[in-house]
Amino acid sequence: MKCRKCGGGAAVELRRHNAAFCSPHFIDFFRKQVAEAIRKHRMFTRDETIMVAVSGGKDSLALWDVLIEDGYRTTGLYLDLGIFEYSVESREKCEAFAARRGQPLLVERVADAVGASIPEVQKVTRRPTCSACGLSKRYLMNKVALEHGYPVVATGHNLDDEAATLFGSVLHWQMDALPRQSPALESTHPQLVRRVKPLYRLSELETAAYAFLRRIDYIVEECPFAKGATSLGHKDLLNRLEEASPGAKHNFLFGFLDKARPAFERQEALGLRACASCGQVTTSEICAFCKLADQVRRRAPAEGTESARP
Amino acid sequence: MKCRKCGGGAAVELRRHNAAFCSPHFIDFFRKQVAEAIRKHRMFTRDETIMVAVSGGKDSLALWDVLIEDGYRTTGLYLDLGIFEYSVESREKCEAFAARRGQPLLVERVADAVGASIPEVQKVTRRPTCSACGLSKRYLMNKVALEHGYPVVATGHNLDDEAATLFGSVLHWQMDALPRQSPALESTHPQLVRRVKPLYRLSELETAAYAFLRRIDYIVEECPFAKGATSLGHKDLLNRLEEASPGAKHNFLFGFLDKARPAFERQEALGLRACASCGQVTTSEICAFCKLADQVRRRAPAEGTESARP
Repeated sequence: MKCRKCGGGAAVELRRHNAAFCSPHFIDFFRKQVAEAIRKHRMFTRDETIMVAVSGGKDSLALWDVLIEDGYRTTGLYLDLGIFEYSVESREKCEAFAARRGQPLLVERVADAVGASIPEVQKVTRRPTCSACGLSKRYLMNKVALEHGYPVVATGHNLDDEAATLFGSVLHWQMDALPRQSPALESTHPQLVRRVKPLYRLSELETAAYAFLRRIDYIVEECPFAKGATSLGHKDLLNRLEEASPGAKHNFLFGFLDKARPAFERQEALGLRACASCGQVTTSEICAFCKLADQVRRRAPAEGTESARP
Repeated sequence: MKCRKCGGGAAVELRRHNAAFCSPHFIDFFRKQVAEAIRKHRMFTRDETIMVAVSGGKDSLALWDVLIEDGYRTTGLYLDLGIFEYSVESREKCEAFAARRGQPLLVERVADAVGASIPEVQKVTRRPTCSACGLSKRYLMNKVALEHGYPVVATGHNLDDEAATLFGSVLHWQMDALPRQSPALESTHPQLVRRVKPLYRLSELETAAYAFLRRIDYIVEECPFAKGATSLGHKDLLNRLEEASPGAKHNFLFGFLDKARPAFERQEALGLRACASCGQVTTSEICAFCKLADQVRRRAPAEGTESARP
């Protein structure tokens, strides 16, 4: 196999593009896809400082790397979920990355906000672990960005992530989730920062190749709570479709964005208002995060309090 | 396992309904689902004679059986596709069924209409075999029903068929196909008969069980051209989802019908007009069937004509 650009030995084959690239030209291809995502969805400008939500995994660190190399002003945000060794190690990866690149990194502990670490939250809520965790992360990203005055949060969601989420929403025809499935969610309220996913055009395999070729030191383990998660099952199914028909994932996601999403966009604006408890934006009186935090508070009293009551 | 109705030994377990039935109560359940489909979508009335498109397989013969037993006036329509032994045997099954039940059966040869049997059509068109065959069948069902004055054609499509078709349309976001995915397609033009699918609430497994319990003699073999068909691959994937989460197929199809389909319904009526060649309804000047027949005529001259020209 030869590089499509220079004819040299190829390092990465991209079946869905029916192409292969040598290492430098793959890196070039990757960065151009990110640039195209930013341009097409007007994700941010060069005047803005971008808060990059990093988990220590390949996707978010690859994203941060691309943005730094492209000259954007960035700040990392690491949310410490308190998931034992996994969180310790992933935080170290983020801190080492930030230090090497001379970039600021904010660290926030989920336990400080919700009242308990994710493993403890899991015990008191009937939500699936990934659901309570995702809710907490989205809430905190927005809160921290607002507090520090960042206009936009970028996350490392890739094509596989987005296709799997869409697949889940479509299987249940979640009419609330479908119009919100987008590479860029505009701020529709002063208390809501823009959320963007500059890697949505790149597959998981491609971000892994980029991280490898760029020698990014990332945490390889999956979150221990992700085992058996529905989204992983959906990724498996989509990989089978992709195997049989390269480009299937791409067509599924991009076809939705181009053709079907407009049909789902709700005509009426959602009635957004301030949460009566925390002041962040919600559609009900109390936001979902505060409800979760309240549940944690009521069912898992801190040590040394009256937890032993019969 | 016990029958949900009578507590007797169960013959059929329905995981997605979390229920099991003895043989008579399963047959009862099956017929009630068909009755509910007919009622809910106003498929036809007892004053109408229903043309039942039968292939000789379990689904269409089960449907015909239910309609006869429920006292509807019916006529069978068998379309002979000319697929070698498969067509010979499936025709015999239909003729034997019709004779035993004392019901009229119309037989039409696809080759008479399109100019060649399906195996020959396959050679001259670049469409997948199932696509040209499906097109021909839909065309002929409508044509024969019009000619004989039947107001409605019923087909044996089951829940698995419908879910697989929807899955394929969703993977490519086929904005034309999505609004047409329905258990009942009204006649929107005098030259277009109503098309209904009274088995859409029943899974493939359930129609197989019904056919077995009712001792219906049907052709068990799949069409030889179906091997490797995309729709079978999609059925496989949906079966994996169903395995992991009983009811997944049902929720996918019914969620679409209840919630998402309205979003896809086109506001503007399609500009239907008469095909300049055959007079049947089309959106272009020449209908897709006549284009296919023309392709067959041009590329596969009848024996004895100038087919040997260099």
